[in-house]
This record gives sequence, structure tokens and C-alpha cells, in this order.
Amino acid sequence: MDNRPIPYKIYLEENEMPKQWYNVRADMKKKPSPLLNPGTLKPMTEEELSQVFCQELVKQELDEETPYFDIPEEIAGFYRMYRPSPLVRAYCLEKKLDTPAHIYYKFEGNNTSGSHKLNSAIAQAYYAKKEGLKGVTTETGAGQWGTALSMACAYFDLDCQVYMVKCSYEQKPFRREVMRTYGAKVTPSPSMDTEIGRKINAEFPGTTGSLGCAISEAVEAALTQEGYRYVLGSVLAQVLLHQSVIGLETKTALDKYGIKPDMIIGCAGGGSNLGGLISPFAGEMLRGEAKYQLIAVEPASCPSLTRGVYAYDFCDTGKVCPLQKMYTLGSNFIPSASHAGGLRYHGMSAIVSELYDQGLMEARSVEQTAVFEAAQTFARIEGILPAPESSHAIRVAIDEALKCKETGEHKTIVFGLTGTGYFDMYAYQSYNDGAMGDYIPSDEEITRSLKNLPQV
Amino acid sequence: MDNRPIPYKIYLEENEMPKQWYNVRADMKKKPSPLLNPGTLKPMTEEELSQVFCQELVKQELDEETPYFDIPEEIAGFYRMYRPSPLVRAYCLEKKLDTPAHIYYKFEGNNTSGSHKLNSAIAQAYYAKKEGLKGVTTETGAGQWGTALSMACAYFDLDCQVYMVKCSYEQKPFRREVMRTYGAKVTPSPSMDTEIGRKINAEFPGTTGSLGCAISEAVEAALTQEGYRYVLGSVLAQVLLHQSVIGLETKTALDKYGIKPDMIIGCAGGGSNLGGLISPFAGEMLRGEAKYQLIAVEPASCPSLTRGVYAYDFCDTGKVCPLQKMYTLGSNFIPSASHAGGLRYHGMSAIVSELYDQGLMEARSVEQTAVFEAAQTFARIEGILPAPESSHAIRVAIDEALKCKETGEHKTIVFGLTGTGYFDMYAYQSYNDGAMGDYIPSDEEITRSLKNLPQV
Repeated sequence: MDNRPIPYKIYLEENEMPKQWYNVRADMKKKPSPLLNPGTLKPMTEEELSQVFCQELVKQELDEETPYFDIPEEIAGFYRMYRPSPLVRAYCLEKKLDTPAHIYYKFEGNNTSGSHKLNSAIAQAYYAKKEGLKGVTTETGAGQWGTALSMACAYFDLDCQVYMVKCSYEQKPFRREVMRTYGAKVTPSPSMDTEIGRKINAEFPGTTGSLGCAISEAVEAALTQEGYRYVLGSVLAQVLLHQSVIGLETKTALDKYGIKPDMIIGCAGGGSNLGGLISPFAGEMLRGEAKYQLIAVEPASCPSLTRGVYAYDFCDTGKVCPLQKMYTLGSNFIPSASHAGGLRYHGMSAIVSELYDQGLMEARSVEQTAVFEAAQTFARIEGILPAPESSHAIRVAIDEALKCKETGEHKTIVFGLTGTGYFDMYAYQSYNDGAMGDYIPSDEEITRSLKNLPQV
Repeated sequence: MDNRPIPYKIYLEENEMPKQWYNVRADMKKKPSPLLNPGTLKPMTEEELSQVFCQELVKQELDEETPYFDIPEEIAGFYRMYRPSPLVRAYCLEKKLDTPAHIYYKFEGNNTSGSHKLNSAIAQAYYAKKEGLKGVTTETGAGQWGTALSMACAYFDLDCQVYMVKCSYEQKPFRREVMRTYGAKVTPSPSMDTEIGRKINAEFPGTTGSLGCAISEAVEAALTQEGYRYVLGSVLAQVLLHQSVIGLETKTALDKYGIKPDMIIGCAGGGSNLGGLISPFAGEMLRGEAKYQLIAVEPASCPSLTRGVYAYDFCDTGKVCPLQKMYTLGSNFIPSASHAGGLRYHGMSAIVSELYDQGLMEARSVEQTAVFEAAQTFARIEGILPAPESSHAIRVAIDEALKCKETGEHKTIVFGLTGTGYFDMYAYQSYNDGAMGDYIPSDEEITRSLKNLPQV
């Protein structure tokens, strides 16, 4: 243990960086329910999953018993270029809030993809390369995942085909150009390159696309090209495994200075960042070694944990992917046009859902304008312009710190700052102009959407 | 000295961070020539300068003898939020180039302003606040300096008025919104708020503005509002003093691992990054303690060091600022529309000019398409998407590493990576589309521009 005063930023030494990823399922007595084949309603087999995903990744996806997976040296080498990410003590924010709480944030935005997505993108690209594939296909909405994957593929000299929701392709030209700079082929979806794309274009001329449609095109592109597989940036167990590097680094940094957190807060869309951040802490709780308050923060406009049900549902609107048991609002649920694109998902990672259902975690929903108010406060005092997604965690961290001010408690709050908002300035403009609103779906809306759950 | 293997990123501990800035003029036997009053052609006095600049900054500007200035604790506290910046060993780039050279880069882009400009912005805002001022005014072109100053002013709760060249204001809405998020008032220049702005608007209806005009408006705004001063992000000696933090950290990091660089490379616009990076090394050379190859890299489209003359000239096109002896292409020189906006300045810092004139430094000019080729290579292999300005240094670093490959020399190359290119995606788009060209001014063009030098 290091007895020096706690610096503003705790950086691990290279030799302190995690050498293995942690699979929290190994410590769960009750495991998440298996993925089901949407046709047979039977658990997906290794063989079935291997038609879409790389083999090594399928193994990681299905393995519920192995607690640690070695991080291959090729991936560790790439991690060393942008990791360890700093665990920052928010001294300035604490002072501004005049709170007795200690606030820390794990900042994942100091890389060109601008978010934590790179942690899994580089792993998925590596296994694809190792398997001798020519390339990978994926979809992207806001563009963070597509950017991360483009960077990873450039590094391993792998072809990268990104189906980008057409309205984002047109409204976010900068994201598109970053991907192109890294050599990716970016196609607006729906395109005329795939059968499903042509079908949708014929049916809905002039459509600006959807994430569900882009997923369907990317999966089709993987299945119809020799040497290609499909990759996904969130929700899956393999992604949470790779993202455990966030939580492992956080825990090592805290332990190094003898800091015991009271609560750990993360924003939740598909659950990849949150799952990665909390998993070593949840592991300790599952093993009965420690107790933490783990908090998932979701947008009030898309409240899968706080207002959804725990049931088997489709992962995509096109209903071609396996069924997953998760907290869901129904695959037909269409979230309002929130600016936190990365959190607009109707469901939630199966692992996060199961941890929540077991009572290891709590969840809160927050409204958009309150989130941007927190984002602006944070930017002005801590310097970093946060992504709208990350700012959901900031909102709750500030609220908790202000509660401590009232009660006089010296709680230690850790939250995940998943990324930067440099490509989200339209959202900030809307807030700066006072033109941003809030939207909370009605009970009827959610009930209606949940009527379409598959019968399992 | 640390005997461990050299990590990918060398981070200093907080207690190893510089506690003082270094003033290279103190070690120069022949000093840079003084600023002259454009009316009297006599050296500017402390009193004259204090009408425009903060007093403490005027002292720093005029002091040629004091080698070290203490960094006030308030500034050091802000530095600790985003500094030390990493000195990165470019292992992956070395491998890709198959060079025996060792390449390091000092990366200044890991903060929301996206560049090194914040190092001086926070110092200038601090002194303004300490002097009891209400606010500061400045101009910005591409927007890096304006963003940095907005962040600094938000931190010290100081009013910030930015005159942004109108075409940039319209073409770079994201930069504008970042500044507004930090609470700055951003006005497109020429505006109707100032006398000079109204005059220019009347004379040239529909003009999209220029940096020279924006400077004039910002200076007028500072002079006509009680409690305001004007601040500038480059060229001045005070700015190079603050930016010495880059070079000091670099030197400490190198010394920590016993690394002796052979060459140090930086891009040069007004000279703030280059001057800051090289100053401790130039200091050693001036004191006869060491020898390095120092290289300034400028765009072929705006070659002040390589094709300009060393003479007194106006610092601004409006000719309201003091005269400075520097390498210049003439204040009427209009650089072609290069994408490296931060390097489109007709002159050069007086300190850098004098060091160059004394033969302590060499200079090279590089063409835009070659720069973007280097930028793309770097991005794909080292992960970071560099700013067009910074990529000038990358180009020469790669060229030197490739020379080492031919000769078999194991040179140690250090270059300054001043910032990221996230707000420069139109430039990358132009390169990605194969639509980017090169432009080199003719001898006649430069000779014509130099005819208007003031008679001193």
C-alpha cells in the first residue's frame, strides 16, 4: 500500500496492469439464463454461434465457469498504448460542491475512439485476425463503437465494414470521417448492398434507417462473405469480459492507496461499461468478501431496469439474433430522440440483469436536462467535456455527494466516466440554447411494447 | 535513474512535475530584440504594455534575466488535473517503419481543449483573476486557443469574450459550442459590437473576417471595457515561458530513464509549442552543457523560417500591435487555405527566431499532402488521430526514422504531438477523398509581401 498523499490522477505502472480479464459469471451461484435459438427456443450451441461469431469469442461467450482469461500479449501491447486509464480524484468538483464525500472517476475517454469501446474492439479484432479471417462487419448508431472497431482493425490490418444508421451517417460526418481515416468502409444503412437493405429501401423509400436494420445488414454481410464474422460492441458476455479491464484497473488503483469505496456508479445502455466497471466488486460481494452500493444509471426516456420486466426477449428489432433473458422494455420500444444515443437500447446485458435481479445492484433513472446540467458543471470545474452517456453517472455522483453534504457523511464515491463528448456538440448546443426537453414514456406505452414479448 | 524497461508511456509522479517555468532568454547571451511601439519605434515600456496586458504578465514578458518563475499553486492545481502529459515511446510506429531509431512523442492532446494551448491559458486567466479583473478578451481562428481560454476562465470564474473569425464561427459550430459550454461569449468577427468591426462591415459588406480583424476587435474590446485585458495564445515571450512546462516535463521523463535524445522536433506556427518544448534543451546548449539537433517544422505554404527574412515587422495585419523582430513573410502575406490553421501565421516568436538566427535550431518545410499521409500512418498504428498542425512534426520524425533505417543509426528522436484532430475532420475528409492539394508560394509572392516591412 502506498502511503503518499492521493494524487489527482492515479496511474498504474505497466506491471500493475491486469494480465487477465475477469468473468463474473464464475462467481455467480445463479447464472444468467442462456441465449436461445429464436427458431427452436433451445439454448444456442457453440456450433450455431460460430456461424456468426469468431470461435474464441464464442468460447468466451458460453463459458460460465472459468473466472479468469489471459489477455493475449498482442492485445496487452495495444492496451499499453492508451491504458492504464487514470483513476481521477475529483478534488475540484468536491471543493465546488462543498461536500465531505470523496469522489473518484475512472476516465476511459483518453483515446481517439473517445470511449471504453476500444477495450473490446481490440480483443474482437485480434481473435478475428488470429482465426485467419479477412474482416469483420458491424453496425453503429452514434458511431463510438464503429470508431473503436475501425481503430482496432487498422492496427491488425483487418478489413472493417460498418453499417451506419443513415441519419447518423448524414448528421455525424465527422464520426464517419474518423472511421474512414482508419480505413473502414462505412455504408449508410439501409443500403443497396444487402438483401435486407434492398427490401427495406423498396418498402420504405427515403427511410433514414434504424439500429435494428443496420444490425440485420451487418449480420447478412458477415454470413454472405467468405472469411467475415459479425462483431458487437455491447450486451454480450464476451464484451463484459473484455470490459472487466476497467473494473480491475480501478480496484488495483484503489487498493494501492488503501481506498475503500462505498458506492460505484455507472451509466447503463447495453451494460458493457457498467458491467466491466462493477464486475470485480460484484465478484467480491458474490464471494461474501465485501459490500458495496452498486448503482446503474439509465435515462428516464429508456428505463429498462427501473420500468422494464425480466424476461426473454429479442436483442434486435429485426428479430434475427438469439433471444436473451434480460430486463427489457420490449424489442418494439422506440426510445424518444434522446441525445445519449449509446443508452437508447430496449434491453440490458444478461449479466447485469441477473445481478440486478439478485439484488446486488440498484438502478436509477435520470432526466436529460438534469444530466446536461451535471455535464456542464463537471466540464467547467474538472476540465473534461463528458459524453452525454457518461454524464448520467456524473448526475447521480453529484446527487450522492450533495446528500453527503446534508448528512455530513464522508462517503467514497467512484463513478465511470466512459467517454468524451467532442462528437456530441449538437446535443450541447441544444442545451446551451435552452432548447432541450425531457421525455418520460407513459405506463401505457411500455405496457403496449411489452405485449410483443416472445412466448418462451 | 530508473533501470526498469522503458514503458510505452512515461508519466511523471506529481512530485516530479515542474514547480517553475523556465525562461530561456536568461541563458541567451544575445537576447531577442525588444518589442517596439509602432508609433514612436521605441521599446515598449512596462506602462505601455500594461494598458493591454495584465501586469504580472507584462513583467514576465519583459524579464530577460530571471531564469525560473515559480508556478503559483492555483495554476499547479489545474495542471494536476490534466498534466503531466505522457511521453510516449512509439514502439508500434518503430516496428511498422522497421527502423533502428527510437521514437518518443510528448502528447499534449489529452485535455478537452485538445492541445497544449491550455498550459498558457490557465496561467493568463489566473493572473487576470488575481489582478481583480472582470474578464479577458481574445481572438480565435481555428478555435483551439479560444477553447483553452474558455476552459481556463470557467475554472477561475472569469468572463471570457472570444472574437471568432466569422467563417470559422460558421464552419466550426462544434468548436463554438464547446466554448459556449464553458460559458464564453463567442462573437463572429467582424461584429457590430466594436468600432473597428462596424467600420469593416460597412467597408466590406458580407466579409467572412480575418484573424487580423478579430485581433483588432478583441484589443478594442479590452481597452473600452472597465476591468478587461487582452490575452494572446502564442508568439509572446510570456506564452513560451508557460509552455516551457512541456519541455521541462519531457526532459525530466527522459532523464528518469537515462535517455539522451539526438533530435527534438516540433511544429512551428507562432512558436509557442516549439519554444516550450525545446527551451530546456536549448538552455543546455546555450550553457554549453549538451548538444542536440533541434528542428522546427513549418508548412511549405507558410514558410516564415525557411523563406522569410529576420526583420522588425507588424505582428497583426491591422498594425495596431507592437513591432517585433522576427522571421517574417510580411504582415500582408496571405497563406493559402491550408488545413493547419494554427500554423498560418506570417511571423514567428521572437525567441524562436533569435535561436534560429544564432544557429541553435534548424527548420524544414513540408507539404500538406505529405503531412496528412504521415498523420494517417500515425493514427492507424499509434491509435491517436493527430491535429494537422502536430502532423507536421510527425512527418519529419518519420522521415528521420526512415533515414536511420538506411544508415543503420540508432538515433533517439523526440517530437511534440501538440494535439488531436477531432475538430479537423473536414481536413481529413478532403484527404480521404483525394481532394487535397499542395500550394507553395512563389518567390515573387514573398518578395512582394516583404516590400511592406516597416522602416525601423
